[in-house]
Amino acid sequence: MDQPPHADTPLPQAWRYWWEDFPVGQVQEFGATQVTREAIIDFARQFDPQPFHLDDEAAKTTLFGGLCASGWHTCAMAMRMMCDEYLLQSASLGSPGLDQLRWLKPVFPGDVLRVRHTVADARVMTSKPHVGLIQSQWRVLNQKDETVLTMEGWSMFRRRSHAGAAAPTPAA
Amino acid sequence: MDQPPHADTPLPQAWRYWWEDFPVGQVQEFGATQVTREAIIDFARQFDPQPFHLDDEAAKTTLFGGLCASGWHTCAMAMRMMCDEYLLQSASLGSPGLDQLRWLKPVFPGDVLRVRHTVADARVMTSKPHVGLIQSQWRVLNQKDETVLTMEGWSMFRRRSHAGAAAPTPAA
Repeated sequence: MDQPPHADTPLPQAWRYWWEDFPVGQVQEFGATQVTREAIIDFARQFDPQPFHLDDEAAKTTLFGGLCASGWHTCAMAMRMMCDEYLLQSASLGSPGLDQLRWLKPVFPGDVLRVRHTVADARVMTSKPHVGLIQSQWRVLNQKDETVLTMEGWSMFRRRSHAGAAAPTPAA
Repeated sequence: MDQPPHADTPLPQAWRYWWEDFPVGQVQEFGATQVTREAIIDFARQFDPQPFHLDDEAAKTTLFGGLCASGWHTCAMAMRMMCDEYLLQSASLGSPGLDQLRWLKPVFPGDVLRVRHTVADARVMTSKPHVGLIQSQWRVLNQKDETVLTMEGWSMFRRRSHAGAAAPTPAA
C-alpha cells in the first residue's frame, strides 16, 4: 500500500478488519511459531539473561528441567502471530494495556505455539463514536494443547460505519 | 559462580538478595537504557512489525509523530534493567504473571529509560514457608521523568531464614 494503515488520513481500502469484524463471542485460532533454541537464547541475551533462559546445563539443574523461553519472549511471539493474523490488516488504534498476564507453563525449544483469540466484550467509545473497543482474551497453546500463557485487554479499532471520521492517537 | 543461582541445590553464597531484602515500602530506582532507532526497528521486525515501529516516514503520519518502540520492547527493556539490578543476584523463583500493564506514553529513539520498583506488599507462602512473595509495582520513566509504562505483580523469592530448604519450580 502507498500509505501506512495508521495514517491520520483514513484509508478504508487498506484495511480488511474494522471494529465490526470482531463481534462478541468470536474465537479465532492462528499461528504456528516454531520456537528454536537459538531464538530463546538470542532473546534472553538481550533482555532476560537468567541462567535457565541461556544455558542448557544450567537449566537442567532447575525444576524447569531444560532451557526455556523468557516469559517476555512468549509475549513477543504471540504479538507477532497477532500482527500476521489480523493487526497489520486492521484499522487498529492500539491498546492502552493488558491485564491478568499469566505464564502458566514453560516454553521449550521445539515447541510450536499458536494463539486463540476470543472477543469477550465490545462497545463503542462514548467520547469518540468512530472508535470501537473490543475486550480480548488471548491464550497461547503449544503442540500438546497445553496453555502456556493467557492475557486479556481492551483494544481500539476504527468503525467501518464511521470510516471517514478523524483518527485518534494510536497507543504504543 | 560455579553453579547457576537457580539450581535446585541451594547455594546461599551465590545470592545477594533474598525475600527479606525487599521490605514493604522499599523504593529502588535503577537503569539507564538508551533506546536506539536500530534497536526499535530490530525488535519490531521480529515481533511487532506495525508501520509506526518500523519506518520513520510511516510513523510521521500517525499521531505518535515519529517512530516509537513496540510496547513489548519497552517491557523487555524493563526486564533487562531488573535482571541487571537485582534479579540475577537474587534467590528469585520467578513470577506467575503480571497485572495492570499500561503503556502510557510512546518510547522514541534517543529516550533514556529507567525503572522505579516499589514493594507494595510482602508475605510468606503458607504452603511453602521457605518461599516469600513480594508484590511489586514497576514504573518505567524516560529522561523527561514521564512515565511510559506501569505494571504490577507478585514474585517469589527464597527466604534467607530458610536457606537450606528445598526449592520449588521457578516460573518462566
